[in-house]
Amino acid sequence: MTSSTSAARVRIPLADRGYDILIAPGLLDDPASFEAVPPGGSALIVTNTTVGPLYADRLTTVLARRHARVLRLDLPDGEQFKTWETLNSIFDALLSQQADRRTVLYALGGGVVGDMTGFAAACYMRGVPFVQVATTLLAQVDSSVGGKTGINHPLGKNMIGAFYQPLAVACDLATLKTLPPRELSAGLAEVIKYGPIADMAFFGWIEQHIDALRACDTGALAHAVRRSCEIKADVVGQDERESGLRAILNFGHTFGHAIEAGLGYGAWLHGEAVAAGMVMAAALSRELGMADGPFVERLRSLIARAGLPVQGPVLDARDNAGRYLELMGVDKKAMQGEIRFVLVDGAGRATVRAAPDALVRTVIERCCA
Amino acid sequence: MTSSTSAARVRIPLADRGYDILIAPGLLDDPASFEAVPPGGSALIVTNTTVGPLYADRLTTVLARRHARVLRLDLPDGEQFKTWETLNSIFDALLSQQADRRTVLYALGGGVVGDMTGFAAACYMRGVPFVQVATTLLAQVDSSVGGKTGINHPLGKNMIGAFYQPLAVACDLATLKTLPPRELSAGLAEVIKYGPIADMAFFGWIEQHIDALRACDTGALAHAVRRSCEIKADVVGQDERESGLRAILNFGHTFGHAIEAGLGYGAWLHGEAVAAGMVMAAALSRELGMADGPFVERLRSLIARAGLPVQGPVLDARDNAGRYLELMGVDKKAMQGEIRFVLVDGAGRATVRAAPDALVRTVIERCCA
Repeated sequence: MTSSTSAARVRIPLADRGYDILIAPGLLDDPASFEAVPPGGSALIVTNTTVGPLYADRLTTVLARRHARVLRLDLPDGEQFKTWETLNSIFDALLSQQADRRTVLYALGGGVVGDMTGFAAACYMRGVPFVQVATTLLAQVDSSVGGKTGINHPLGKNMIGAFYQPLAVACDLATLKTLPPRELSAGLAEVIKYGPIADMAFFGWIEQHIDALRACDTGALAHAVRRSCEIKADVVGQDERESGLRAILNFGHTFGHAIEAGLGYGAWLHGEAVAAGMVMAAALSRELGMADGPFVERLRSLIARAGLPVQGPVLDARDNAGRYLELMGVDKKAMQGEIRFVLVDGAGRATVRAAPDALVRTVIERCCA
Repeated sequence: MTSSTSAARVRIPLADRGYDILIAPGLLDDPASFEAVPPGGSALIVTNTTVGPLYADRLTTVLARRHARVLRLDLPDGEQFKTWETLNSIFDALLSQQADRRTVLYALGGGVVGDMTGFAAACYMRGVPFVQVATTLLAQVDSSVGGKTGINHPLGKNMIGAFYQPLAVACDLATLKTLPPRELSAGLAEVIKYGPIADMAFFGWIEQHIDALRACDTGALAHAVRRSCEIKADVVGQDERESGLRAILNFGHTFGHAIEAGLGYGAWLHGEAVAAGMVMAAALSRELGMADGPFVERLRSLIARAGLPVQGPVLDARDNAGRYLELMGVDKKAMQGEIRFVLVDGAGRATVRAAPDALVRTVIERCCA
């Protein structure tokens, strides 16, 4: 067990809502991981039927030192359950147990558990404290950091939600050992993302360490998680509510969300959809003269080495591009029906802008199979 | 038509989220009422099947000068519809119309419409702007001011929600002319509330003008709405998120919420339940030695003159007090199962504290019929 005093610590710099992300193996079993949480009151661990049996008992043991009562709720596992019905089951559990305003919610799991638990915490009695205990790579490098919470709507992903910051985030690297390879790869999509939008030196490092990362090497993962969190912390600290800069974190997500919604949530993992979406966004950047061919090829190659799809699925055999455009029209970045894309220039810089429909169609037709 | 330049204006003093409450007859038809709203983009007027037919066309005409597109959604009317299902119909309307982050939601109606529209605005794409156009006395003096939004859960009132401030609040006094007398009385409950918790001189003024208020005299209503908003603005400005002081605004609401939940939402109006709840809270204050008998009688008398109930309903013939206690146990002010009451001292001061169950039982048994 590693004490959290020796864990890497990345600060999210948000005035009165700032908090630390702790990164190390063994955080789950270390009471010091939760020192930011006011003691007393009750706790509810929200997890899922996959992660709960692996780790919830251990977390309960640690939290019992801090809270008078520790309850647990296992949600069904999968993006297709990121719905109002599942969210409501958290409210039912809280109310039937007479949870009060001091009750702390602990999200134990990946992005789906974290997004729903955070949103439940934002809404229950208009706001109770919550903590993220991230057990997937995707949650550790992206979804647990920065306070975006929410649920899906049949007409669009993450359409209903809140900006609501946790008290703390614990990224226990040891939990990644139990992650299925497909989910590890999905998490790598969000790690790779940080290169083109912010740090091509980090992108080069990932290229060199992609095999170690896929083999779950703790040292490599520690660096990947830390650097990803540092970049995200820097962006979120400048623009918590995505009035501008923060949108660059959605590189690959405009196409990616269309893939997820078009196939039905859960068919592809979020990271898989983002992976194919990044290739499409890079190709669109090239069409617009921002990026060059070698960069697009370099990105495609790394995504393939990460075990991720480099082509989007065909969502509609008759008018595939039309279907993508329709689904992207409800993206949160859209303005008055105009879709806005995160585009990159090959040097670690991103920008958000619209693109001509004809070019977007060309890219979709070329990048799907 | 009164130009909003001559309207009374009460400022909610919240740093970067401060806004004005405008109070005057005719605001609905005056473009100047909405000068705080950024022009452009689309607008959705959320109203109900009672208020919509009366005022939505007029509001649409005014807003069409400000927004490229003005849509309208009529919700069913009543507290029993303040549910997730109704809230979701707002999201459906927004998404099916491709509403974006700049879309402004206008709540046209009373407390139920305002609470749901505000909560929808808080959650849609993690937050879009909204405006309250309050057409009931209760909304004008209480629910539209201060940013509390939310929906009910079968196990408790307003349990799911957010603190989310509007861009502006317009209290059009002319709309009160179409308010049924029962709803006018329900609004008076929240006006009366401000006396015992903050300003007994105002309480004296209400005693002198209760008949004019019930007769819908515009001058009397203008003063009652303005003074109520001033007191609420002062409290909310000090404690937006109810970490302390703001809870005094819930005088009568602990018992009142139990009445609403116990009878089923919509059986009694919110203001009616608060009215009986204030009598019970005053009686409890007296039992605890804080208030004297003449004050309790004075409050009861004014509530009766306002056309409001002074006794709570029997919620359970076998153990009425037990049922009240059970329902009050999930009140948002409760801490670890201990119910906390807003109590008054007869001199315009309130405090929040627990009370022995035996005393609470005595009060319930005496105050219900």
